[in-house]
Amino acid sequence: MRHFIHTDTLDITTIHALLTRAKQHEAQMVQADQPYRNRFTANLFFEPSTRTRCSFEVAQKRLGMEVIHLDTDTSSAVKGESLYDTIQTLSALGVEIVVMRHTHLSVYEALMKQNVNCALINAGAGKQAHPTQALLDLYTIQNHFGELDGLVVAMIGDITHSRVVRSNLDLMQRLGIQVILSGPENMRDPELERRAPYVSFSEAIQKADVVMMLRVQLERHQGEIFSDASKYCEHYGLTQARMENMKANAIILHPAPMNRGVEIEDACVEHERSRIFAQMRNGVYVRMAVLDYVLGGIKTC
Amino acid sequence: MRHFIHTDTLDITTIHALLTRAKQHEAQMVQADQPYRNRFTANLFFEPSTRTRCSFEVAQKRLGMEVIHLDTDTSSAVKGESLYDTIQTLSALGVEIVVMRHTHLSVYEALMKQNVNCALINAGAGKQAHPTQALLDLYTIQNHFGELDGLVVAMIGDITHSRVVRSNLDLMQRLGIQVILSGPENMRDPELERRAPYVSFSEAIQKADVVMMLRVQLERHQGEIFSDASKYCEHYGLTQARMENMKANAIILHPAPMNRGVEIEDACVEHERSRIFAQMRNGVYVRMAVLDYVLGGIKTC
Amino acid sequence: MRHFIHTDTLDITTIHALLTRAKQHEAQMVQADQPYRNRFTANLFFEPSTRTRCSFEVAQKRLGMEVIHLDTDTSSAVKGESLYDTIQTLSALGVEIVVMRHTHLSVYEALMKQNVNCALINAGAGKQAHPTQALLDLYTIQNHFGELDGLVVAMIGDITHSRVVRSNLDLMQRLGIQVILSGPENMRDPELERRAPYVSFSEAIQKADVVMMLRVQLERHQGEIFSDASKYCEHYGLTQARMENMKANAIILHPAPMNRGVEIEDACVEHERSRIFAQMRNGVYVRMAVLDYVLGGIKTC
Repeated sequence: MRHFIHTDTLDITTIHALLTRAKQHEAQMVQADQPYRNRFTANLFFEPSTRTRCSFEVAQKRLGMEVIHLDTDTSSAVKGESLYDTIQTLSALGVEIVVMRHTHLSVYEALMKQNVNCALINAGAGKQAHPTQALLDLYTIQNHFGELDGLVVAMIGDITHSRVVRSNLDLMQRLGIQVILSGPENMRDPELERRAPYVSFSEAIQKADVVMMLRVQLERHQGEIFSDASKYCEHYGLTQARMENMKANAIILHPAPMNRGVEIEDACVEHERSRIFAQMRNGVYVRMAVLDYVLGGIKTC
Repeated sequence: MRHFIHTDTLDITTIHALLTRAKQHEAQMVQADQPYRNRFTANLFFEPSTRTRCSFEVAQKRLGMEVIHLDTDTSSAVKGESLYDTIQTLSALGVEIVVMRHTHLSVYEALMKQNVNCALINAGAGKQAHPTQALLDLYTIQNHFGELDGLVVAMIGDITHSRVVRSNLDLMQRLGIQVILSGPENMRDPELERRAPYVSFSEAIQKADVVMMLRVQLERHQGEIFSDASKYCEHYGLTQARMENMKANAIILHPAPMNRGVEIEDACVEHERSRIFAQMRNGVYVRMAVLDYVLGGIKTC
Repeated sequence: MRHFIHTDTLDITTIHALLTRAKQHEAQMVQADQPYRNRFTANLFFEPSTRTRCSFEVAQKRLGMEVIHLDTDTSSAVKGESLYDTIQTLSALGVEIVVMRHTHLSVYEALMKQNVNCALINAGAGKQAHPTQALLDLYTIQNHFGELDGLVVAMIGDITHSRVVRSNLDLMQRLGIQVILSGPENMRDPELERRAPYVSFSEAIQKADVVMMLRVQLERHQGEIFSDASKYCEHYGLTQARMENMKANAIILHPAPMNRGVEIEDACVEHERSRIFAQMRNGVYVRMAVLDYVLGGIKTC
């Protein structure tokens, strides 16, 4: 059974195969219409999501798959059934893939150890991992620059709470990208700084080919210096003024949802450097590739 | 981008084109099976709805469209994302039409001004507008009478809170229908009475070709004279006795959901004069026409 | 209009026709792909469910049906509309079948008396009836033993709260199966014991060809002797030790969701005697047959 939980366990060949397949989906070059007609998938979101949930649903339906939504409020979870039994039940009903968002990465690992009969796809795990987001970031960067090797990516803002940083870090470094981190003092993460250098905001802006602004979760910083939106923007937001210091060909990413006027100004979101809506569009192609992958539709030898 | 938000901005030619297309859908005379296969729509309801939501969903699926439901409780709205960004995200994912019910009409207007990339369809906006309901009322009336010009339509009951009255008024008057209003004193609306005459209940019943009973929202009239269901029915309900005073060929409409035994008696709902369930059936054809319209599938000039 | 509410009103010929059709669905021997394309069904669950809801949804989609989900929280029910009007509305919109879970069996009976225009399928009614579960139990037993006549089925545990027992009892007895009941004193049901003998747990285990363990709802037995999970298992759980006293060819069923370690040990769930996941798989074929049945697709006389 092929799952898709971590970026770390994907080898370089597989990553490239996934990016290539996503490109084929974008160009509609793959199999004819709806290759997986009448194949069943289930989406199981224990945390709120619009973008990722809808993105998977569009990807599934474009591939012709049938989608079962499990409402985590009204499902048998309330009767105390274990997640293992829920997933084995789905498998018995004919479901081949479970796309799941859950607070704890350890839950996915436990399910894999128990040998569940469905392929699991991680659609975001707490602050720990968001592998399809990392893959669509890579895809978007590759679309712009052609080559990944040698690029500098700056991830800026609320590093502490970001699963996006965690999933991107290892993936990018193995592909020859230099990652740098920046953001307010109280949002730094010592563990991640052992893996990538922390620099000042202005240095990050000047050096990066890719400026990735992270969503600030202000509500988690009550009473602290940057718990005020406008103050955050003044010190750590991407503004039009700061954007002028970016390299000539550099682009802007954001995993969204965005706090406009906090970590990023409106003008930067809509600017021609911005690839933020392209990221969303690319997410569909990348997730189609991941669905292909877990069903064995991508040869990775 | 074509939206469908107001009745007032639809010209007479367009209204007739929509009614004609609805007729073609009813007769299954239009394009072959499922003309919009693999086209994506999203349904976004910020207020409760069974009828309208399901009616749109049936219309969408009959046209072969894929439907994404946005749960307004668990979506990214809880992360503070703006509605503009949610809709632009849906567009980036491939969604072409957003069907939305929202409390405030101004929200639709703001989104149009911001040039969102999805076609917006208003599925009911607070007490202000419900254009697809008005269109299906017209369609149902035309089906019975053939001609609209010269008919008298009486709208009776809770005028103050009715978005249905507001959307029908202008549309009907422009098509040559004479609209009259009636109902309890405490549910009158001075603004609307500048546009259509207020008459007694008995006069309304006697004069009208179409008796449109409105849903009373008793809970909004606590402590008032007609806050009691049986008293309301006694004074302002359509009863079998009152029905006998209707014109020979006159019909009964109700936008539903109905309070049976309050604004309308069971016997009138099930009577051969009643077109209430026909309205629901017709809603599907009319909404198919509106979906056609926003996708440019109806020539109107 | 054909409904599917009670097992008692199904004659023997119909039961066999349903089991045969389920077998044809399992073998994919029936009509070609998706015989009911573009036919609309609605699922209306007033009580939580994963298994049954998803099982019906998979069955519907395999038959090519379009599925409308009615969210019982946000639908017009909150506006006080009667269930009768909701179902007549769905019918007007084009829905042919309503699959419903509701607390009270009397609600289905009232709707049938009111001659609703949709076929109703009972997806579990309070503690009173769960006819598709009974049918899938029969199907699973027949798959293993070939013949039903002369078998002994023991239903063990929380008899009082079990709709599964109620739906199985009459059906099995009419098909020549001997039913015996067992379980803790405080979960016995005098009415059911007039129809089937109550025996000790050890006798039930030794005599039965089919050991059907029931879900214990411990939360309903607060402060009683078996309100503690481990104590319950010690006295009335199916353990590996007890399993050794079963007849050579006997099998284990459970309607699920399971309380592992309460009424059944992990080792018994995963044992080769267990048909618990087969029950779930078979539920899809049986429900496909029931959907066929209410649409008149099964000849029964």
